[in-house]
Amino acid sequence: MFSGFLSESIIKRSIDKGVVEIELIDYRAYSNDKHNHVDDTPCGGGAGMVIKCDVIDRALKANRSDNSYVCLMTPQGRPYKQEMALEFAKKEEIILICGHYEGFDERVRDYVDDEISIGDFVLTGGEVPAMAISDSIIRLLDDAITKESHEDDSFSYGLLEYPQYTRPIEYNGKSVPEVLLNGNHKLIREYHLKEALRKTLLRRPDLLENREFTKEEIKLLNEIKKEEGLE
Amino acid sequence: MFSGFLSESIIKRSIDKGVVEIELIDYRAYSNDKHNHVDDTPCGGGAGMVIKCDVIDRALKANRSDNSYVCLMTPQGRPYKQEMALEFAKKEEIILICGHYEGFDERVRDYVDDEISIGDFVLTGGEVPAMAISDSIIRLLDDAITKESHEDDSFSYGLLEYPQYTRPIEYNGKSVPEVLLNGNHKLIREYHLKEALRKTLLRRPDLLENREFTKEEIKLLNEIKKEEGLE
Repeated sequence: MFSGFLSESIIKRSIDKGVVEIELIDYRAYSNDKHNHVDDTPCGGGAGMVIKCDVIDRALKANRSDNSYVCLMTPQGRPYKQEMALEFAKKEEIILICGHYEGFDERVRDYVDDEISIGDFVLTGGEVPAMAISDSIIRLLDDAITKESHEDDSFSYGLLEYPQYTRPIEYNGKSVPEVLLNGNHKLIREYHLKEALRKTLLRRPDLLENREFTKEEIKLLNEIKKEEGLE
Repeated sequence: MFSGFLSESIIKRSIDKGVVEIELIDYRAYSNDKHNHVDDTPCGGGAGMVIKCDVIDRALKANRSDNSYVCLMTPQGRPYKQEMALEFAKKEEIILICGHYEGFDERVRDYVDDEISIGDFVLTGGEVPAMAISDSIIRLLDDAITKESHEDDSFSYGLLEYPQYTRPIEYNGKSVPEVLLNGNHKLIREYHLKEALRKTLLRRPDLLENREFTKEEIKLLNEIKKEEGLE
């Protein structure tokens, strides 16, 4: 499952450079039945299988250290956000526990430090979420992506990213906005901020709810609301 | 990037059974410069590179059909939810456009039907989100996961999943709840509903905001609030 991901560009480069180490642990090795089962049918009935708490407990005992931060990948976890990526990037070691098809025995939650969901949708397993989380952290560790680039990231300022343009200047009757072509950096900066605010207001007003706005942002927001007929 | 994902269990089985077809398209083939560049520096300056609108336009013209539903993978898109997976599972053909490291020229948005984000975090590219979306859809198409199992899914009822347990019945001093062991299906069902409500109320009250509660749910929620001292 992870082979493509681990051999790909930034992840591979980060591993090669020693920026990050990734170890895949098959917790099947910590089963104590002869068929190496890690799951069993749910108590009380119901569809699907449930991953056993004793298997996870043993796997963690054998692999965690004092510096491990253990996260269960589960749709019942706290929704993953960029702030968490920034926080996780500072940790020494993170263990991401993935189920496949199945839920975990509730008692597994006693053995973990955190429970993470990447969104309100259902997947066949925790592997793709673990890749998403790894990717979001590793890109912050890697100096191949410049600091400047991180600071421009969507959500890094709590706003959606402003619209970007590149050549051709005109295509299918649509042009790059004039302001981006005249080299006036003050105006360009204002355009970027205003359009980031506009996109966030129109698409994700929830992101603005607890924001402390600067004076400039309040002025731009008022202009945007007039322009969009939202007054 | 996709090799592990496509060769893995349910995805591979679904492809082998003809439940789904997946085609990887390298839009580098639709570049019209001699180095096959698909990106260029941002107009107005700034870090990173921007994927060119003309490349995506040509790639789509060559690959989309009347039945294609074209989605751009972008942090500025609408947040992906289980309801969207159910809706997407009915579509004939979906094209997921992934950037890598970069944003798209704003004009690309004119050529797509939808813009999807899998969450408020930044990744090196759209590939992991495309895997997440593919996985969420394919598991709904595959009859290997029974209908019953889908209906039990987290979020399928708009609630987090209830706690699950399996053997050992007792482990490290913690037992499976008595009610799950006595075979009384009416009580088990009520326990499942109550604990799903409890978990959702305590962890993700936002999911309950627009819910129409049944009489039974209201009664159980009142019990939970008393038990949790939330009255």
